[in-house]
Amino acid sequence: MRPLPRLIIEPIVRLALSEDLGAVGDITTDAIIPADQAGAVALVAREPGVIAGAGCAELAWQLVDPAIQASFRVKDGERVQPGDVIGRATGPMRGLLSGERVALNFLGHLSGVATATATIATAIAHTKAKVTDTRKTMPGLRALQKYAVRAGGGSNHRFGLGDAVLIKDNHVAAAGGISAALLRARASAGHMVKIEVEVDTLAQLRELLSLADTADAVLLDNMAPAQLAEAVALVNGRMITEASGRITPETAVPIAEAGVDLISVGWLTHSARVLDIGLDYLG
Amino acid sequence: MRPLPRLIIEPIVRLALSEDLGAVGDITTDAIIPADQAGAVALVAREPGVIAGAGCAELAWQLVDPAIQASFRVKDGERVQPGDVIGRATGPMRGLLSGERVALNFLGHLSGVATATATIATAIAHTKAKVTDTRKTMPGLRALQKYAVRAGGGSNHRFGLGDAVLIKDNHVAAAGGISAALLRARASAGHMVKIEVEVDTLAQLRELLSLADTADAVLLDNMAPAQLAEAVALVNGRMITEASGRITPETAVPIAEAGVDLISVGWLTHSARVLDIGLDYLG
Amino acid sequence: MRPLPRLIIEPIVRLALSEDLGAVGDITTDAIIPADQAGAVALVAREPGVIAGAGCAELAWQLVDPAIQASFRVKDGERVQPGDVIGRATGPMRGLLSGERVALNFLGHLSGVATATATIATAIAHTKAKVTDTRKTMPGLRALQKYAVRAGGGSNHRFGLGDAVLIKDNHVAAAGGISAALLRARASAGHMVKIEVEVDTLAQLRELLSLADTADAVLLDNMAPAQLAEAVALVNGRMITEASGRITPETAVPIAEAGVDLISVGWLTHSARVLDIGLDYLG
Amino acid sequence: MRPLPRLIIEPIVRLALSEDLGAVGDITTDAIIPADQAGAVALVAREPGVIAGAGCAELAWQLVDPAIQASFRVKDGERVQPGDVIGRATGPMRGLLSGERVALNFLGHLSGVATATATIATAIAHTKAKVTDTRKTMPGLRALQKYAVRAGGGSNHRFGLGDAVLIKDNHVAAAGGISAALLRARASAGHMVKIEVEVDTLAQLRELLSLADTADAVLLDNMAPAQLAEAVALVNGRMITEASGRITPETAVPIAEAGVDLISVGWLTHSARVLDIGLDYLG
Amino acid sequence: MRPLPRLIIEPIVRLALSEDLGAVGDITTDAIIPADQAGAVALVAREPGVIAGAGCAELAWQLVDPAIQASFRVKDGERVQPGDVIGRATGPMRGLLSGERVALNFLGHLSGVATATATIATAIAHTKAKVTDTRKTMPGLRALQKYAVRAGGGSNHRFGLGDAVLIKDNHVAAAGGISAALLRARASAGHMVKIEVEVDTLAQLRELLSLADTADAVLLDNMAPAQLAEAVALVNGRMITEASGRITPETAVPIAEAGVDLISVGWLTHSARVLDIGLDYLG
Amino acid sequence: MRPLPRLIIEPIVRLALSEDLGAVGDITTDAIIPADQAGAVALVAREPGVIAGAGCAELAWQLVDPAIQASFRVKDGERVQPGDVIGRATGPMRGLLSGERVALNFLGHLSGVATATATIATAIAHTKAKVTDTRKTMPGLRALQKYAVRAGGGSNHRFGLGDAVLIKDNHVAAAGGISAALLRARASAGHMVKIEVEVDTLAQLRELLSLADTADAVLLDNMAPAQLAEAVALVNGRMITEASGRITPETAVPIAEAGVDLISVGWLTHSARVLDIGLDYLG
Repeated sequence: MRPLPRLIIEPIVRLALSEDLGAVGDITTDAIIPADQAGAVALVAREPGVIAGAGCAELAWQLVDPAIQASFRVKDGERVQPGDVIGRATGPMRGLLSGERVALNFLGHLSGVATATATIATAIAHTKAKVTDTRKTMPGLRALQKYAVRAGGGSNHRFGLGDAVLIKDNHVAAAGGISAALLRARASAGHMVKIEVEVDTLAQLRELLSLADTADAVLLDNMAPAQLAEAVALVNGRMITEASGRITPETAVPIAEAGVDLISVGWLTHSARVLDIGLDYLG
Repeated sequence: MRPLPRLIIEPIVRLALSEDLGAVGDITTDAIIPADQAGAVALVAREPGVIAGAGCAELAWQLVDPAIQASFRVKDGERVQPGDVIGRATGPMRGLLSGERVALNFLGHLSGVATATATIATAIAHTKAKVTDTRKTMPGLRALQKYAVRAGGGSNHRFGLGDAVLIKDNHVAAAGGISAALLRARASAGHMVKIEVEVDTLAQLRELLSLADTADAVLLDNMAPAQLAEAVALVNGRMITEASGRITPETAVPIAEAGVDLISVGWLTHSARVLDIGLDYLG
Repeated sequence: MRPLPRLIIEPIVRLALSEDLGAVGDITTDAIIPADQAGAVALVAREPGVIAGAGCAELAWQLVDPAIQASFRVKDGERVQPGDVIGRATGPMRGLLSGERVALNFLGHLSGVATATATIATAIAHTKAKVTDTRKTMPGLRALQKYAVRAGGGSNHRFGLGDAVLIKDNHVAAAGGISAALLRARASAGHMVKIEVEVDTLAQLRELLSLADTADAVLLDNMAPAQLAEAVALVNGRMITEASGRITPETAVPIAEAGVDLISVGWLTHSARVLDIGLDYLG
Repeated sequence: MRPLPRLIIEPIVRLALSEDLGAVGDITTDAIIPADQAGAVALVAREPGVIAGAGCAELAWQLVDPAIQASFRVKDGERVQPGDVIGRATGPMRGLLSGERVALNFLGHLSGVATATATIATAIAHTKAKVTDTRKTMPGLRALQKYAVRAGGGSNHRFGLGDAVLIKDNHVAAAGGISAALLRARASAGHMVKIEVEVDTLAQLRELLSLADTADAVLLDNMAPAQLAEAVALVNGRMITEASGRITPETAVPIAEAGVDLISVGWLTHSARVLDIGLDYLG
Repeated sequence: MRPLPRLIIEPIVRLALSEDLGAVGDITTDAIIPADQAGAVALVAREPGVIAGAGCAELAWQLVDPAIQASFRVKDGERVQPGDVIGRATGPMRGLLSGERVALNFLGHLSGVATATATIATAIAHTKAKVTDTRKTMPGLRALQKYAVRAGGGSNHRFGLGDAVLIKDNHVAAAGGISAALLRARASAGHMVKIEVEVDTLAQLRELLSLADTADAVLLDNMAPAQLAEAVALVNGRMITEASGRITPETAVPIAEAGVDLISVGWLTHSARVLDIGLDYLG
Repeated sequence: MRPLPRLIIEPIVRLALSEDLGAVGDITTDAIIPADQAGAVALVAREPGVIAGAGCAELAWQLVDPAIQASFRVKDGERVQPGDVIGRATGPMRGLLSGERVALNFLGHLSGVATATATIATAIAHTKAKVTDTRKTMPGLRALQKYAVRAGGGSNHRFGLGDAVLIKDNHVAAAGGISAALLRARASAGHMVKIEVEVDTLAQLRELLSLADTADAVLLDNMAPAQLAEAVALVNGRMITEASGRITPETAVPIAEAGVDLISVGWLTHSARVLDIGLDYLG
């Protein structure tokens, strides 16, 4: 996969470093480590997972000290086992120590998101369904978290409120029905914009399907697997089908087996656990 | 507790809104909801927890549309039960819908951090130990996450590399011993800066205690409760004692009962689950 | 139409004011106009057109002096005739004078874009075709220019490289054919992302149509009206059809009459003439 | 001419790239073009004109991918004929494609401004008059547009409200006469600040000339050539003379022949047509 | 005098507050002062001087807490005596305490600059000379410091390298003489740009005066009063005369009496002592 | 000493350059100096002092033109005598001239702060006292000024309101006594945060010392040397002792001899005189 351009990641990496270095820098390291001491560190996986965020970790060290060289033998999107060396950084020891925490914060969190995504993607690999993300992201980290979802084998849903239409129950209520809401959305949206409609019941789905020019996709919210299977049969390929609603790695399998195209999971980005990655000093 | 001043939270709230609204705004809502439709929403807890981030949620809506009024009946740091109304927002329906996701992203995540903190704080309430955070925070969210830790009844460790000294094993190795490292740190740090030293063994702790002018605090890393108790007895009040090392809500209790002053938990900020908060439309 | 939220326009308005006010402000006005002199100005159309950018003009004055009140009787998207009063601003004379140029720069340029769009939209109103914009926008002004296109009755194409796929000749060449390119794009793009393919000849179009799962839209580049009509017949409603290639107000009519769904015009945003709007001082 | 320092152009180039690349980058190119494919492109003039903005185009590509090398054989301020190769860029094909639009948007617009300027400058080359710009610039682009005016052989008027005094009719009215306005301006402005006064009639000009210590320059607004000639005779070298008022390439010649020192033209920056520059892929 | 618009001062006030409040705010005040405690403070002059920066102080408090009301009975540019109350602020005690230092830092420094300026302006008030500033300003504070110079009765020299031409010895050397340098500058600079030439000797001055079209101003560098008087006589009103060169309040008088128009003093902005202003808590 | 990382100094150096170069750059140099002229300059001390800010000066030139090479033979924190060459810069003459003023503004001011600090540090070198700074810093320059204090041999006090507790009279009054204030502060502050209490009298000091768990440091405000000696005796090593209150180089000696640990001096940062450093052109 293509790493995000530096242009996109640089502002958030600078922000994270600025949070950590503040106005004076790393007073512990500066006091104790000689300026001319060189060193090397290895990033080592402590548990199995999928890596994402190598570019952020590398950039963090480079911004702390351009003399630091980082090389990653594991690329974003690749799996690691406990003990695997993900990458190394060499250079001035002061910079290695001062940049360590920010580098690990990016790498651990984004690999956590990628690993969570991969867990579900693997579990449903025998179906045609793909796992996708939501807009339930950490403030300021959406671009990176959605990148990590791709690294984990997931697909991206909307990046924001402007790149696609998603008609929810409140929209339908305000418009006085699915048909009216869809009509207004079509009249307003550009030709490159897809339209998805959320339905909670099969009755709503039938109404949606009865329209001459239906939506591009339907979000089947909080339906049980049996109901989802019925919905998929009703849609019969006329729209992309997406299941949502507090889906966990466990519940994902029967849902995927119900035949939907996509399973969207907020947990990937709002509650993913960090991937445990350690930093070993090689001297 | 005093909410963070708007000055501190405004940049990250603007960033989050900018991620979501992009260059065109909420094309679904704009197409479907009439400009003059007013509405009201309630933020409702779906599970028990501790709230943090009300100010961010409120600011998110205000920045989307200054005509929106938000009022929170639950303040940051207070507990909620499932079904409790945390707050309400009223005003133009378009703005309520367009700002909903960002408001919830802040409130859900920060309440998740506060709740995780409170879980541990409650579990160890019968001891003198306090739970504290680490620098293992989400990039860009450190100030907010550490605020949420305070809301959950926790205490804050360092905000960055500049406000206190923490001497770790690599520092000790580079200096050629704890004594030399401590000496260099003291000579360099300002008089308002505390110094903590990490030790992995009781032997290291004894070395630290043997110094005429010891540290302000000691970080007892990855020690079992029995060992911690022995360490606390050795310290005998001469330094603040902090236990660390992949502590979970379950392992926290025996560790706290070992008599340490502080338990630092990275999980509070790097892996806290979102608190489930729903948004009900009141019409 | 819903004005862009202040959140989106504020940075560019501040930038424009900063360019003009610099480090010292309006030294002419400050030297000559008394601080307590109040005044009123009217924005008056000097030629026929469609207005866009009222919100930017208003914000410019407010940022210069919050005591200035602006009210627009013509809303964005509405037509004006020579002599029509578009809006008025009242308040401290110093602020009115100091903010005048920036307010007019926004209003004149964006109304120019809206008017250019409306010229084509009107000319092709008897067809089903809509006029749409391109990514050939002024650096820094894309969100505003695309808003102005909507104000002029046009539709928006992509806002950037991330919200839709547009496969061009170089992509096809690199992939070794339309089919391969389309396949790769589908495998990679999220389910809410539309895919458009550019074709230069009817042969390419037939190849595209021969694919089992064709694109959402086709860009018919630089075709004459007769060829376009043939292309539209070939497509026969299976894809959205878009004509492009240095289209002017004059050439737009026969192209629209050829039956395409969309006509994209770079000139709307890269070469639109300013709309002549004057500022009359009412005393 | 000396290109603007990177310090000045970098923020606007980053802003333009950010508009185009958004949070995910170029999804079309990333999906279709292999990471290791290299390529070369040529920027080719499609019509005659004067080039400006080569540095912005080069920086745009470099910020997308530092591995891209751009070299321009035509420098800013030089003329091109249709078919002339302006410059080449080589490097990773992905980056060449992803940066193409932003590079062209800068180069096309700024060359358009330079060409518009040169058109007038050439037309009046047999007179002593120079063409100059105004503050009627695109928001956010003033520094670049004024640079393009210089590239086209024009001269720059004020960059903002703080670097020179320009007394207009409203200022005169508020002060109760030209003399009073001029006196106040002189008393307030620093010694390195020039003062220009706008006059609409020869009577006003005579009043201005009657003052013991007159202005540095006079703006002769909306006067016909004959009237301008009379004005120039009256001034008789005591002030710089500037003609203004909706001047076009056609009307510029008789105005210049009337003997004024400067002709200011808002159209250069608020309504200049793009210069048609194509991008040819060389493989 | 007109205060600088909020647009200009807000970024530096936010920066200063951000330096002081950091990521957690005022931990002393938050811990000790109850949220509902109101209070009032008075800014009191401890020594004689001229005030500047009231707007910055007020804005600092407002940004810390919008509930704080500040009112200044002494305006920028007015004199104070020891004990004079400059202004008052009332509102929440927490905000008053948290914003105090930043408010005082602006007010004290800028009043220091204004007072330094006034000291010289007063000393030379019996001559026609005015005191002016230089570009020797504190990084980031130029706009504010130059405003304070105006408040102190001084005049502003250039704001930057772009608003006027100042030809120094290195420029003359590179051009091969004053005449050549002046010619190049005239050919390049816009008509609203003044040109000043630095001379170190009367011989250089004579050369400058011998040119048909001389400069607008001459900088007489490091000349003794007698030499300056001779220079002024030579110039005889054909150019503005400015004396410079480590001028102090003591040496300013004879220099001014030599008849120059301006005395430029770097010390005003690079070495001005703070004005001692205290903050009294009124309860 | 370790220079501040570029990450910390770059924003303020860019801001300072932006103030000086504005939207057009150095019009004098661009007009007169040929593009291909190379040169070299030497930074030469004109008076004795201690250097700080070499990194800012170097970065200023590099941002103006990356082709400029700067090398400093005097490092930050080292002493210079009149005539000493501090460093050299070589490269394009245009860039050397355009960056000169900003480079000197940083170097002169920060060396001024370092020299002021060193003056006091030297005067009290025979005592155990160290000189420390305050929060009375120039807006926007706190990180740099505190770095310069370190360069001059001083120690840093708090960087902001969040990294340590300092209880002042108003806090004590609001809490109803020193004991209550200290208790609240301890309950709220993290374990890595030190607490200092300001006392104005020996009675207050005795009250503070009577507390079972006293503060980490005491600020002895405005006490005469004899009183300070008594205070130091009372404290008897139980707290760090800091003397403050308009201390000058002259009064510092007897105060230091009274036995305090620290002397804090606001004058170092709010009123330090520039260090006179010249720039000699070597051709």
